Amino acid sequence: MNYRFLIEYDGTRYAGWQRLPGKDTIQGKIESVLRKLTGDETLEIDGAGRTDAGVHAKGMVASANFETTLSETELCDYMNRYLPEDICIKDAKIAADRFHARYRAKGKTYRYTCYIGTKKPVFDRKYVTVIEKAVDIEAMKACAAHLTGTHDFRNFCGLSKMKKSSVRTIYSLQIEKQGSYLYFTVNGDGFLQNMVRILVGTLLEVGYGNLTNEQVLLALHSTERMKAGPTAPAKGLCLMEIDYA
Amino acid sequence: MNYRFLIEYDGTRYAGWQRLPGKDTIQGKIESVLRKLTGDETLEIDGAGRTDAGVHAKGMVASANFETTLSETELCDYMNRYLPEDICIKDAKIAADRFHARYRAKGKTYRYTCYIGTKKPVFDRKYVTVIEKAVDIEAMKACAAHLTGTHDFRNFCGLSKMKKSSVRTIYSLQIEKQGSYLYFTVNGDGFLQNMVRILVGTLLEVGYGNLTNEQVLLALHSTERMKAGPTAPAKGLCLMEIDYA
Repeated sequence: MNYRFLIEYDGTRYAGWQRLPGKDTIQGKIESVLRKLTGDETLEIDGAGRTDAGVHAKGMVASANFETTLSETELCDYMNRYLPEDICIKDAKIAADRFHARYRAKGKTYRYTCYIGTKKPVFDRKYVTVIEKAVDIEAMKACAAHLTGTHDFRNFCGLSKMKKSSVRTIYSLQIEKQGSYLYFTVNGDGFLQNMVRILVGTLLEVGYGNLTNEQVLLALHSTERMKAGPTAPAKGLCLMEIDYA
Repeated sequence: MNYRFLIEYDGTRYAGWQRLPGKDTIQGKIESVLRKLTGDETLEIDGAGRTDAGVHAKGMVASANFETTLSETELCDYMNRYLPEDICIKDAKIAADRFHARYRAKGKTYRYTCYIGTKKPVFDRKYVTVIEKAVDIEAMKACAAHLTGTHDFRNFCGLSKMKKSSVRTIYSLQIEKQGSYLYFTVNGDGFLQNMVRILVGTLLEVGYGNLTNEQVLLALHSTERMKAGPTAPAKGLCLMEIDYA
């Protein structure tokens, strides 16, 4: 059977989604539970994307092919019973044979959360990045409008050498302030390594007045290797949703 | 000068509010920062109440008498700079000489949060108690109505022997369900040790159908030592507000 999972996790103590020998990873934790269930020590689960170390998810989708006599609900309950409390299977469903969480993904939504203020956000501290400086939100929104669309994001990637195409399409990049929280919500067809965090880091530099729109556009359109903004910290980032056709 | 502080903390890793030699406590952390500031190794801070190990606060009030050349804002910033990230001074103000956080407190509001469902609440897991069984909220509300008012709460206290009076007044005890969350909000003139957690533990037993209203009233009105319900876990409890005249 082919199974599709909807997964939520607090990435704080993990070395990211992807299985890594000797490291705690979300993929590794889930695979070890499914391997225990099935007795199949080669069982693998495919995530829609690979979140970095410290990045969270409310809507990761993953798929895996295996046999079990458990019903969908029993499978979900079984996994949650054996998974640590910072990983939760929100849903487990039998999927069409051709479904593959990564290959079939048409788009992804990430949200980056900043907390603006000098008072520390005690209860959210692992899920937000604190900003103590004033930010010009209108300037960031103007810059965000230029970043949406189809571009070569090579200068917004954590890897210095990209063999594959670094062209991606951002369908929307919304910036919204609610009380002390500043949310960057970005939906696109795919993201390069660290791309969302570099987009946010760049927009914040624009908001602080340290980078101009023109400098950001230069980084976006230049074929030269040049630095966009810094990479915003992992803990503010959360994978919200995966879109399938 | 007499100072008044509004304090928020995540109590997860602390042995409670009250200073205890060799243990991490919230009072201990704050006092050590103020002792560093003033050079006065005997400086003490008085909290409006003593929260148990693992209990949180969004509105603890405390007072302390000391001299500093820092302004109120500078004092607040200084304390937040040296306090760990799970304790935040939300406000520091010069208070009237006669103000004392504990002696002047007229009432306190606590909130207890439960999460109803089989799916683990990943991001709130340290601040809620998960309930997997169905609860009869109307039955709990009916019982809560009987618990409000002035009563001898000796059977709702964690200490088996009380030298002082165990009569307290509960002004209101509200039970509200919002989505998957169940909130118990209780306001009273003061609470005995573990009293809020025993009230919640008792109401939950009523909600599960394990205790009747009559059994709870017997525990409330009896002068005999008898057990009310169990003590609900610390992590769901949060001190929300202290009332002053």
